[in-house]
Amino acid sequence: MTLPNESGVMTPAQLLEHWQGHRRLTRRVIEAFPEDQISTFSLGGMRPFAEMVMEMVSMAAPGVQGVASGDWTMRARTVPATRAEMLALWDEATEEINTLWPRIPAGTFQESRTAFGRYEGPVYQLFLYMIDNEIHHRGQGYAYLRALGVEPPPFWERG
Amino acid sequence: MTLPNESGVMTPAQLLEHWQGHRRLTRRVIEAFPEDQISTFSLGGMRPFAEMVMEMVSMAAPGVQGVASGDWTMRARTVPATRAEMLALWDEATEEINTLWPRIPAGTFQESRTAFGRYEGPVYQLFLYMIDNEIHHRGQGYAYLRALGVEPPPFWERG
Repeated sequence: MTLPNESGVMTPAQLLEHWQGHRRLTRRVIEAFPEDQISTFSLGGMRPFAEMVMEMVSMAAPGVQGVASGDWTMRARTVPATRAEMLALWDEATEEINTLWPRIPAGTFQESRTAFGRYEGPVYQLFLYMIDNEIHHRGQGYAYLRALGVEPPPFWERG
Repeated sequence: MTLPNESGVMTPAQLLEHWQGHRRLTRRVIEAFPEDQISTFSLGGMRPFAEMVMEMVSMAAPGVQGVASGDWTMRARTVPATRAEMLALWDEATEEINTLWPRIPAGTFQESRTAFGRYEGPVYQLFLYMIDNEIHHRGQGYAYLRALGVEPPPFWERG
């Protein structure tokens, strides 16, 4: 889809690519965590990074599914036993998002939806919220990694 | 500016409001920091939150100025002595962004610019990067506040 230059900020395809760039970075942060710390380490009473990641997984593909099809079934996700299983769930969600995104009808981003029966607002805000929530918690994950003495992946690399 | 429903994700005015919502939250995070900790406290060798905030100030209004006028002068910002001065610089930037944003010519968001003579890419990506960088470092600020035993402001409140 080509965005007429005079009308807006970006196209749905550009927003998807922006999000998937962030998801590639978050995947590298998951990989950077020591296996024995990702589900246990915490600072200041916050959740371990694995729980934040599973929150992202519980919302990401189901959110796209909700917008694309009207089926807003939440998928509760418990923290898997290994980092490898977590990465597999992450990759599954990546594929599902890529498959469902083009099914979002043109014009939907400016329409209002009640996500998961609870959060009402324009669709573009719903997706920005999911991306922002991922960046926010990943920033906390960076702090965890630094506190563990691990160098996190560069923030600006999204490829 | 009204976005034709079929063309894109959001309008420039909507992106500005999204950013300013994040800036209001970041302002509350600055206020939440104990005065004696904002320029000194750190975790894992990361910068104190005041330095991250001044990085945001050094890029935000100057970035909008660059896109709006072609003047990409960087404004180096050292950490001020008090939190009140930091908040005053923050509020000055908020006003400047609101003033300059409507001067960005329609269509510019899909054009390429070299920000500050260094970062080349489409304008929409430049602004998303500045917002994302703010969210990322603010997430680290949340970790600092939690480690200091301070309850941060709710992430979802942007008013």
